[in-house]
Amino acid sequence: MKRYLTLILLLCSCAAFAQVEKSMIVTDSISSAVLGCKKAYNIYLPQNYKKDIDKFYPVVYLLHGYSDDNTNWTKRGHVRDVMTNLVRSGEVQEMIIVMPDASKKNGVPNACHGYFNQPDWAYEDYFFTELMPQVEKKYRIRADRTNRAIAGLSMGGGGTISYAQRHPELFSAAYSMSAFMGTPVDYNKERHSHPDVMVFVEGALRHDCVKYVREASPEILEALRSVRWFLDCGDDDYLLEGNLEFLLAMKRAGVPMEIRVREGAHNWEYWNSALYICLPYFNRGFDRF
Amino acid sequence: MKRYLTLILLLCSCAAFAQVEKSMIVTDSISSAVLGCKKAYNIYLPQNYKKDIDKFYPVVYLLHGYSDDNTNWTKRGHVRDVMTNLVRSGEVQEMIIVMPDASKKNGVPNACHGYFNQPDWAYEDYFFTELMPQVEKKYRIRADRTNRAIAGLSMGGGGTISYAQRHPELFSAAYSMSAFMGTPVDYNKERHSHPDVMVFVEGALRHDCVKYVREASPEILEALRSVRWFLDCGDDDYLLEGNLEFLLAMKRAGVPMEIRVREGAHNWEYWNSALYICLPYFNRGFDRF
Amino acid sequence: MKRYLTLILLLCSCAAFAQVEKSMIVTDSISSAVLGCKKAYNIYLPQNYKKDIDKFYPVVYLLHGYSDDNTNWTKRGHVRDVMTNLVRSGEVQEMIIVMPDASKKNGVPNACHGYFNQPDWAYEDYFFTELMPQVEKKYRIRADRTNRAIAGLSMGGGGTISYAQRHPELFSAAYSMSAFMGTPVDYNKERHSHPDVMVFVEGALRHDCVKYVREASPEILEALRSVRWFLDCGDDDYLLEGNLEFLLAMKRAGVPMEIRVREGAHNWEYWNSALYICLPYFNRGFDRF
Amino acid sequence: MKRYLTLILLLCSCAAFAQVEKSMIVTDSISSAVLGCKKAYNIYLPQNYKKDIDKFYPVVYLLHGYSDDNTNWTKRGHVRDVMTNLVRSGEVQEMIIVMPDASKKNGVPNACHGYFNQPDWAYEDYFFTELMPQVEKKYRIRADRTNRAIAGLSMGGGGTISYAQRHPELFSAAYSMSAFMGTPVDYNKERHSHPDVMVFVEGALRHDCVKYVREASPEILEALRSVRWFLDCGDDDYLLEGNLEFLLAMKRAGVPMEIRVREGAHNWEYWNSALYICLPYFNRGFDRF
Repeated sequence: MKRYLTLILLLCSCAAFAQVEKSMIVTDSISSAVLGCKKAYNIYLPQNYKKDIDKFYPVVYLLHGYSDDNTNWTKRGHVRDVMTNLVRSGEVQEMIIVMPDASKKNGVPNACHGYFNQPDWAYEDYFFTELMPQVEKKYRIRADRTNRAIAGLSMGGGGTISYAQRHPELFSAAYSMSAFMGTPVDYNKERHSHPDVMVFVEGALRHDCVKYVREASPEILEALRSVRWFLDCGDDDYLLEGNLEFLLAMKRAGVPMEIRVREGAHNWEYWNSALYICLPYFNRGFDRF
Repeated sequence: MKRYLTLILLLCSCAAFAQVEKSMIVTDSISSAVLGCKKAYNIYLPQNYKKDIDKFYPVVYLLHGYSDDNTNWTKRGHVRDVMTNLVRSGEVQEMIIVMPDASKKNGVPNACHGYFNQPDWAYEDYFFTELMPQVEKKYRIRADRTNRAIAGLSMGGGGTISYAQRHPELFSAAYSMSAFMGTPVDYNKERHSHPDVMVFVEGALRHDCVKYVREASPEILEALRSVRWFLDCGDDDYLLEGNLEFLLAMKRAGVPMEIRVREGAHNWEYWNSALYICLPYFNRGFDRF
Repeated sequence: MKRYLTLILLLCSCAAFAQVEKSMIVTDSISSAVLGCKKAYNIYLPQNYKKDIDKFYPVVYLLHGYSDDNTNWTKRGHVRDVMTNLVRSGEVQEMIIVMPDASKKNGVPNACHGYFNQPDWAYEDYFFTELMPQVEKKYRIRADRTNRAIAGLSMGGGGTISYAQRHPELFSAAYSMSAFMGTPVDYNKERHSHPDVMVFVEGALRHDCVKYVREASPEILEALRSVRWFLDCGDDDYLLEGNLEFLLAMKRAGVPMEIRVREGAHNWEYWNSALYICLPYFNRGFDRF
Repeated sequence: MKRYLTLILLLCSCAAFAQVEKSMIVTDSISSAVLGCKKAYNIYLPQNYKKDIDKFYPVVYLLHGYSDDNTNWTKRGHVRDVMTNLVRSGEVQEMIIVMPDASKKNGVPNACHGYFNQPDWAYEDYFFTELMPQVEKKYRIRADRTNRAIAGLSMGGGGTISYAQRHPELFSAAYSMSAFMGTPVDYNKERHSHPDVMVFVEGALRHDCVKYVREASPEILEALRSVRWFLDCGDDDYLLEGNLEFLLAMKRAGVPMEIRVREGAHNWEYWNSALYICLPYFNRGFDRF
C-alpha cells in the first residue's frame, strides 16, 4: 500500500505541469532516533500542491485512537473525501493534514503505546523534536502557531488535549473527539486489564487532563485561555463521564470552550461526521491564504 | 387577543363540516380554586380537531420560562408553525400541546412565581389537581401515561424535570431545554437578588433536581428509569454548569438519558429549534393513532 | 415603535463610551424624491457600532416578501437573534444588514407593489439611486462589490435574482429563498386575480428571471458567472416549479450555483433557518476585517 | 471474505442462546437459473435475529451503483454502522436490508450490466422472479408491500425509480440518491463511450424515468401516487440536470415527492449521509413491530 502511494506521489511529481491535479494522501516516514525505528505517517496534500510550488498551507495534526495507526483516518475517517467536500463548498481553504502513528506493533497484536513518554517509548519527544519539525520543514507548511491546530479521537482526543495544555505556544486550536481524558472514571478495570492496554492507560493516567485544569496556576490558566478549545463527545459514548468532568473543570477555571454533545457513540460514524465541524472550526481561526 | 381566538374557535366550530380545517392555538382558562383566580393556558389543537370528533390525541405539556407566560411558546416559540412542518413531513403525528401559565402578575411587573408550591401560590397543586384533569377531560386527550409527555425551557426546564422526577407514573417522557436545575451553582447572587425573582428561585432551590437524583432510593431510581429523559442545553448557556452536574448525577445513578449540547445560548432561537428534536422524540414513544 | 427605536439610537449614541454595547436594529427612513414620499427601512447595526467609530462593515440587502414590509425580517425572521448566534459562534463577522420597504400602503390593505418600476412606483430607481447610495454614505459600510450581497424571500427572492442579474457589477453574491421567479408557471390565475396583487405580478412577469438567463448573450452570461449564486427553496413550496426551471436554465447556461432544496414550505420557519446558511455563505466571500 | 462471513453466520447460529447478539451483514448467494450463474448478495440481519426466532422484519432493497457490486454499501456505505446508530437512537426499528449484485465481471474489469434486461443478462427477471421471492422466503421478512421499500445510488437510483414505477404494487416507498435517470441529458458521449459502459447505458436509456412519467396514463399516474417517493441529489452532482427534469415531470404529473438537494457531489460521503434520511423515512411508513 505504502509503495503504491509512493508511486502515486512520484507520478504526480512528474505530472506537475498537468492542468488538473487531485489532492492526495501520501504515506511517508521518519527514521526516528528517539524511538529507534522508522515511523510512518500519512499526510494529506492539497489539490495543486505540486503545481503551486510557492504556496504554504496551515497544518492540522490528526491523532488516531487505540488499536489504530496512521492509516485509519484515511481508510475509515475518509479524511480526503471530507476535505474534497469542504473545499468545494468553500467551508475550508486547502490545508495540510498530518496523521502520525502512535501504535507500536512489535509482533504484539493490538499493542498501542500512545502519545505519552513511556519506558522504551519516548513518543512525546518524538512528536515534538522529530515529527513536527521534520514534517514542517519537508512540506510547505506555515509553521506558525496561528496556522497550526491539533485534533484526535479517543486516545488521540486525550493526546490532543494534553499536548495543547502543555504546549499552548504551539497550537492555536485543539478539537477533541470522544476523548479518553486519563481521569480516574475513564479507567475500567475489566476493559483495561490486558497488559498491552495498560501501557497506554498508565501513560494517560499520568496526564490526567481534568486534574491538569483543576491544579493549574493562574499563569497556566491564562495560557490555556489563548487556545481555541472544542470538545465533541457522543451522548452514548462510554467515555462521556470523563468528558463531562473535564467540561466542569474548564467551566470552573474560566477557560472558554466550544462544546457539542451529539447523538452518537464511540465509533467511526461519529468521528467522520466530526470532521465536518472540526475542519471549518480550525479554518475560521487560520489566516486566509 | 383572547377574544379574537375564542371567536376563531367559534367560527371553526360552525365550520365543522367544511372541507379543510387548519390547526390552531386557542387561549382558554380555568377558574382555579387552588390559586383563587382565573388562570389562562394556550392549547394547540390539530388540523381537523373539530371534524374528526371521535379522535383522541397524545398530549404534551410545554412549560414557559421566567418572565414569560402561557403565550410565549405561541408568539416566539412558533409552536404552531413547527407542528405544521413536522406533521407535513411525517415526523410527528398530530397531538395536543398544552401551554400553562406559571407567571403571577398582580401589578408587579416581571413577578413570576414558577412551578412549585409557595406561600399563597400552590402552583403544583393547581397543575396536578386542576389543570391536568380538567384539560384532559375537556379536550380529546388520550389520558394515559404512554401518550403524555412534558417539556419546558429554563425555569420550565427545571419544572419539567422535577415534575417528571416526582411523577414518573404520569409522564412517559420529559425533555428539558436550558434548564434551571435549582442546584446551588444555578443561583447567582446578583442576577437573583430582586425580591420578585427570589420567590421563584427559592422554590427551585427547594426542588434541586441534582440532589434529588443523588439521594434517590433504589426504588425511586428504578421508577426514574421508566421515563424517557432528554436534556438539551446550549454550549454558551449560562446555566450549562448546573446541567452538566445533573448529567453526571444521572450517569452515576445509572439512569439513561438522551443528551444534546448544541451550539447556542439561553435564547429563543435555541428553543424554537429544540422543538424540532423534542416533538419527534416524544412522537417515537407515543402510540400511533 | 419607530420613535422608540430612534430614542434607543440616541441613548446609544450618548452611551458611546460605555463598555458593552449591544447590536441593534434601527428603523430609519429616506425622503424619496423618486417615490414622492418618505420610505422607511430597518437596519441592523453591529455590537460596538457606536464605539468602534473607525470600523467599516460589509453590507447585506435583505428583501421582504409580498404583504410584508421593512419590519418583518426583524419581527418574524429574528435576524438580530440569528446574527447574535452566528457572530458568537464565529461563523460570520459583524456586518450591516439593510431591510428596505417595497410595500405601498396608501389606505389599500395588502397592496404591495414590489421591487420593479411601475407606473407611479419607480421602486428600482429608488433602490439604486436613493436608498443604496444614501444608506452606504450615512452608515459605515464598505461600499464595494466584494463586500456587498443581496438576499430575499418570495417576491424578494425574485427581486434578489433580477437585481443581481442586471447589476452583477454591484453585488458579489445573491441568495434567493422561495423565489417568485416571474416565470409563467409562477402565475396562478386564482391566487393572483386581485387587482392589488396584479401590480406586483405584472412587474415580476416583465422581469422573468428564467427567460433572462435563457436569452442572455455570452457577455451577460460571463458577467453572471462573476456572481456567487445561491438558491434555496422548500420541497413543499408552491413556487418550487419555477425554481426548478430557473435551476435548469442556469445549469444549461453554465452559470454555477449553490442549491438547496430542504424539507419545508413557503413560511417563516424556512426563512429564519435559511439565514443560518445565507449569512455564513456571504461571509465566506467577504473580506475579513 | 465470503467464507469468513459464512463462518460468522455459523458461529452465530450456534450462539443462538447467548444473551447479546450483534447485528451482522452476511454474504449469501443464489444459484440463478435466469442468469445461468451464482449471484451473491449482502444481507443485513438485525441484532438478536437468531434469538427472536418468531420475529419478522420489514425489508429494504438497497441497490449499488456502476462499477460497484453487492459489497460496497457494506464496505463504504457503512450501512451496518448507520443501522446501529439509528436503532440505538430510536429513529428506526430493526429491519432487514438486502444488497443485490448487478455487476457482471466475466474477466472484463469494470463491466457492470445494471438493473435492466439485456441480451444474455435478464437481470430484472432475476430480481423479481428469483432474488426477491427466495430471499423473502429464506429470511424472516414481512413480505408485504407496506413493509417493503427500495433505495439505490446512481445507476441504482435509476433502478430504484424504474422498478418502483413499474411495480408500485410491490414497493410502498422508493428513495433515489444521485440517480442516473436514463434520460438523454444523463448520457455523456465521452464519459459513456466505452463498450462496457454502453451496455448499462443502453439499458437505462430504454427505461427513461422522465419519459415514463410524462407519458403515463391516468391509471398509471394514480398507481404512482400510491408510492412514497423521495429524491435526493447533491447540488454539485453531474447528474443533477436529469434529476431536475424528473422533479419537473413528477410535479407536472401531480405525483407528490419528498425532495432534497443537499450540499454535495457524486460520492460516498453523500450516500452514507443519505442513509440517515432514507432509513427513518422508510421506517415512518412501515408498520411498527
